[in-house]
Amino acid sequence: MKEAGDKRICIGILGFGNIGVGTYQLLEMNHSHIKETSGLDFEVVRILEKDVDRPRPVQVAPGLYTQDADSLLTTPDIDIVVELLGGIQPATDFMLKAMAAGKHVVTANKAAVAAHFPELRQAAIANRVLFRYEASVGGGIPILNALTTALTANRFIEVKGILNGTTNYILTRMAEAGLSYEESLAEAQAKGFAEADPTADVEGIDVANKLSILISLMFGERVAPEDIPTVGITGITPKAILDAAADNSRIKLIAHAKKTAAGIEYNINPMALPLSHPLASVSHEFNAIFVTGDGVGDLMFYGKGAGPLPTGSAVMGDIIEIGKAMAKNSAYDPVVPGGPLK
Amino acid sequence: MKEAGDKRICIGILGFGNIGVGTYQLLEMNHSHIKETSGLDFEVVRILEKDVDRPRPVQVAPGLYTQDADSLLTTPDIDIVVELLGGIQPATDFMLKAMAAGKHVVTANKAAVAAHFPELRQAAIANRVLFRYEASVGGGIPILNALTTALTANRFIEVKGILNGTTNYILTRMAEAGLSYEESLAEAQAKGFAEADPTADVEGIDVANKLSILISLMFGERVAPEDIPTVGITGITPKAILDAAADNSRIKLIAHAKKTAAGIEYNINPMALPLSHPLASVSHEFNAIFVTGDGVGDLMFYGKGAGPLPTGSAVMGDIIEIGKAMAKNSAYDPVVPGGPLK
Repeated sequence: MKEAGDKRICIGILGFGNIGVGTYQLLEMNHSHIKETSGLDFEVVRILEKDVDRPRPVQVAPGLYTQDADSLLTTPDIDIVVELLGGIQPATDFMLKAMAAGKHVVTANKAAVAAHFPELRQAAIANRVLFRYEASVGGGIPILNALTTALTANRFIEVKGILNGTTNYILTRMAEAGLSYEESLAEAQAKGFAEADPTADVEGIDVANKLSILISLMFGERVAPEDIPTVGITGITPKAILDAAADNSRIKLIAHAKKTAAGIEYNINPMALPLSHPLASVSHEFNAIFVTGDGVGDLMFYGKGAGPLPTGSAVMGDIIEIGKAMAKNSAYDPVVPGGPLK
Repeated sequence: MKEAGDKRICIGILGFGNIGVGTYQLLEMNHSHIKETSGLDFEVVRILEKDVDRPRPVQVAPGLYTQDADSLLTTPDIDIVVELLGGIQPATDFMLKAMAAGKHVVTANKAAVAAHFPELRQAAIANRVLFRYEASVGGGIPILNALTTALTANRFIEVKGILNGTTNYILTRMAEAGLSYEESLAEAQAKGFAEADPTADVEGIDVANKLSILISLMFGERVAPEDIPTVGITGITPKAILDAAADNSRIKLIAHAKKTAAGIEYNINPMALPLSHPLASVSHEFNAIFVTGDGVGDLMFYGKGAGPLPTGSAVMGDIIEIGKAMAKNSAYDPVVPGGPLK
């Protein structure tokens, strides 16, 4: 068996937008540190990207770019395929093809993971590769890792999450600066916290993808994102914000799931949380996930839910864990983490 | 190779106090859930404990108890030794002996880990076993796992922690009920949050052990707990609490370490934190750890820093991760996580 230390791990990146650049940048920045602490030499050897001329804050050798997906998905010189295209297709088919070819897959793509969770996980097991998606929920916050490793002695009871930085920024600014929804949205767009078409964020669609993934991991049940009753924040008025403040509360867009005797209850709603609740003081673009387990009790994880480097931290964390498992010939999941989906 | 599913993992517990009972209780409560989700059958087969007659909230077959440490440390029928004796010795020697005999070791013992971190870690590497100690810092909060797995793409910059529930309870009650230090301590003792001799908690000695462990993992440097400049909370007056409140702040006992150009700076001090800081609203017996990495930015982990079941959750989490690695023949650390200690 190869000892760690002489192990070079070759990465192919699908899509070189913000998260791809953040991942590349973090690896470049900390390459020697990662090599020293893991004994592994990670290298990006190919990038699938059409728009090679877009100005980016990293220098990439032009020879790394390709427009031939198969040169990442099926060639033997790639160990880990990192899917950062976004959107359900062709991302999902690319991930399935890569796993069928024996590649490990890392993704930040909540839409694809939420839409095809069972198939993607089964593909990893069937092909004896690892499939990891930490960055798909909570950006840089290592919540999925905690749920699937350190906390697995617990039966989970409940999760409440602020899972979308755009809507949390808008609600925070409405409360602290007395802005209307429209004014706050315009400010978020000007600062780059909201997209030109903010629908997926403000209507809760992005949050539904993330809650679907959390429900799968915490409760072992598959709930499609479109089946989660979801109310966004477009109807929140300055009066509602003021009424909450007068009641020592703050309105937050909360993704909620709870185990009950009748089954799993779930929904996404703006909720007034008392200031004493740890989620109430999660402000601006920050995210937080509050989980309750039958052993550990209440836990909260707080951090940056988006941004190139924080999300890159989660992507690189998955890559490094896969590399460590490769060095031990243990890069496969023998059992479905979280149990078989019902 | 054995597939997971037929794997029985045998546990020996050293010391059956609160944490031992919590660990046993959690495993009993969730045994079928853990078996279903991990494919592994964990069983406590021996317990080193003199005081077998003490009333405990779990039923243990009398045949499990022994007073012969070697029957756990060196006999072939034990896979994982769980050290919950507390105190530096004989706990450290027991752990070293168990590892020399090829046993994996899990501990919640911050004093022993902080005092002998390099030897214990080297022993694990030399004997190709796993040594895990999640419960030694932050109780049920899975902070060490995050620092050593999901966050390893980061160079860490800073940590600020509320790492002791006793002192946080005392400070919270002084602020919210206007109690003196002495009154608040008496209340904490009455509620079981403080010991009859509270010295280790209120003087910051317990926190120094935890900060020493965090510094080792985050910065790869060894700082003995007794070398950390430490001020406890015995000098905090009601006036200081009121002055902080008037300044929109709260006094918290903060364990702090930071990387600077000149090296790692570290200390433990009561600090007035502005209410806008996420640590300021961590109340009563809760703990929280605020860490900053160069990729992920600011993160906070919040939860119960003590108690039988929360701490048992961390101990069982370590045990399950070791079991999963055993099922893959990968239960060893090829490289020191966090890099070699300087």
